[in-house]
Amino acid sequence: MKRIYLDHIAATPLGPGVLEAMLPYFGERFGNPQSLHSEGQEAAEAVAGARENVARLINASESEILFTAGGTEANNLALKGLALANRAKGTHLVLSAVEHSSVLNAAKSLEKSGFTTTLVPVDQDALVDPAEVEKALRKETVLVSVMLANSEVGTIEPVAEIVKVAKARGVLVHTDAVAAAGNIPVDVRALGVDALSLAGDQFYGPKGGAALFLKKGTRLLPLLDGGIQEGGRRGGTENVPAIVGFGAAAELAAAAMAERSARMTALRDRLIEGLPRAVDHIILSGHRERRLPHQAGFFVRFVEGEAMLLSLDMKGFAASSGSACTSKALKASHVHLAMGFDHATVQGSLVFSLIDTTTAEDIDALIEAFPPVIDRLRKMSPLYTEFLKEKGR
Amino acid sequence: MKRIYLDHIAATPLGPGVLEAMLPYFGERFGNPQSLHSEGQEAAEAVAGARENVARLINASESEILFTAGGTEANNLALKGLALANRAKGTHLVLSAVEHSSVLNAAKSLEKSGFTTTLVPVDQDALVDPAEVEKALRKETVLVSVMLANSEVGTIEPVAEIVKVAKARGVLVHTDAVAAAGNIPVDVRALGVDALSLAGDQFYGPKGGAALFLKKGTRLLPLLDGGIQEGGRRGGTENVPAIVGFGAAAELAAAAMAERSARMTALRDRLIEGLPRAVDHIILSGHRERRLPHQAGFFVRFVEGEAMLLSLDMKGFAASSGSACTSKALKASHVHLAMGFDHATVQGSLVFSLIDTTTAEDIDALIEAFPPVIDRLRKMSPLYTEFLKEKGR
Repeated sequence: MKRIYLDHIAATPLGPGVLEAMLPYFGERFGNPQSLHSEGQEAAEAVAGARENVARLINASESEILFTAGGTEANNLALKGLALANRAKGTHLVLSAVEHSSVLNAAKSLEKSGFTTTLVPVDQDALVDPAEVEKALRKETVLVSVMLANSEVGTIEPVAEIVKVAKARGVLVHTDAVAAAGNIPVDVRALGVDALSLAGDQFYGPKGGAALFLKKGTRLLPLLDGGIQEGGRRGGTENVPAIVGFGAAAELAAAAMAERSARMTALRDRLIEGLPRAVDHIILSGHRERRLPHQAGFFVRFVEGEAMLLSLDMKGFAASSGSACTSKALKASHVHLAMGFDHATVQGSLVFSLIDTTTAEDIDALIEAFPPVIDRLRKMSPLYTEFLKEKGR
Repeated sequence: MKRIYLDHIAATPLGPGVLEAMLPYFGERFGNPQSLHSEGQEAAEAVAGARENVARLINASESEILFTAGGTEANNLALKGLALANRAKGTHLVLSAVEHSSVLNAAKSLEKSGFTTTLVPVDQDALVDPAEVEKALRKETVLVSVMLANSEVGTIEPVAEIVKVAKARGVLVHTDAVAAAGNIPVDVRALGVDALSLAGDQFYGPKGGAALFLKKGTRLLPLLDGGIQEGGRRGGTENVPAIVGFGAAAELAAAAMAERSARMTALRDRLIEGLPRAVDHIILSGHRERRLPHQAGFFVRFVEGEAMLLSLDMKGFAASSGSACTSKALKASHVHLAMGFDHATVQGSLVFSLIDTTTAEDIDALIEAFPPVIDRLRKMSPLYTEFLKEKGR
């Protein structure tokens, strides 16, 4: 059976040429970039080249890119590093209620050191209102962190507007662009942010290659104390193959952005329009227009998310119910709850996220396979039986 | 010109079969272990297999292995995670003076949160005396961290004895075994430690695959807050290819340990005995017997380390002057200074560390190439001119 993989947000295959770019650094070019000898210098040059590619993808300078081992590390470094280095300014944090668990939990950890957090609410499309951010700001607010796009529901947040509000009050702004970067245009200057997290594995790069953009002159405490790597702001031997792969993926993403985005958007819309025609009682999650080009999330009523995933898996489709970072916890997503949906609705969460090789035929195959899967599950659902009874009255 | 690479401690090539084990996880098996679908389950099984191999290498249980992205992260997680989770017990840390920068700087960072540190001195072989550790312990000591082996000077520390001293006082013990694990037998039960850091890239595994052993029941706060990975103690998408490669390297290391160690020791001793016969005024650094089988470090008097490295590089030899994590800082090593050597001596530091493919011919080639390199450098050295003048008197 052909597998149709629609879980980009959990993991993607590597883009064309990415593994090939990495392979020499697993092989003869295995040196440590900090070494003075030729093998070390070769590795250092490769890291410098990757840094240039990553900087260019988001319109940053190379010196503003700190490599990390993943998006979670970048988010932890941003939250803790900025908050702790700038705590003289204050100990209040403002986050949106739909941030990734790495941002929310980093803030929780800061609360143990005396910080307090305000979570800004979102509307039912998961949109953050800049006016709500403004209301949340206090004299002692040191940092605002609002994500650029939410992978669970696809919504793209008005970060530039939020920056304006925060900057008027002299507050630092970080944005978690892990789901966005490489998939939609990201320009740190246009956004005006002080820090931005991105991860190559969200745009066909390898795991282990990620970065924090940190605007020149911004104070940050390291999270990984140690050696002199990354200007002393992130210790640890550079993962050269992963960094090189990250750089190659960044170059690819920049070159493919317009074409890929148009193609993904058309396929996404085919799914967003087709699925509710095939099955009743489906709600699109997230904003209809302001959304990631590769993401289509739904709430399927009267059905339970995990059961759908497993049934779809047996039919050859890989999908998710939200963030892979919390999926096995089998809890209702804090993102969905923040959007105002009840537990019964959000338990039917189903997220499809397209990859570069997804075709219209894949989408059509999903739309065709979907109704019998849902029918079977609904037949077993007490909620659905009850719904039909109510309706029959 | 044939390159002779003798800088194991900075980086090694991958072991036989390691890349081959990783490749499927860059390719068709690219899933996220947290995903419920088949692609996810396949990845989860691969991670579980690697965890088993890593656990077996150090005689731990699988549930005691937390994967990290590197030795520096493992050391930071151990120091900060143990100290902060157990601070009710006290806020005093005991470290040896020759710890890796990731341990020392993690402790410095903890000092900002109210912890204090005692550095235990070492003798001129870099050996820590367990009695000195005992003297440093206080009622409020929460954690002792002494490395298993020092990569800069090769010395293997008496960690089991240190554990006895600390355990008699109910103090947690962490050991940084990054330089040791995979190169010498490491048994967490025999050592008795509560936590131990190891990294695959020190034994022919890939960068990005490392771990913290954490004894069952030991309290730890996460360093990377986020998702539910690693039992909630280390958020972030698992780097599956790196973890698989780490597991493969652990399996290889366990199988090759005795043979490899004997072979390395013989080659190391050939160098330790041969080099001082070829050139005058050379001092072995570290302990003559209690040392890593692949490490031979020296102080070459009247010569400057970087000049030696660059000259050797031009002759085809890759070596280092100490830790790659601080090498480009061009400062005297804190390890060498702690051993009681003066600045003039330690600036002549030169570390050779052998890799699996090093041959007796490589060692002999180095011993042959060495005297003219040193002669040339000494001719330009004011220190040497002065020494000869003194001697001539």
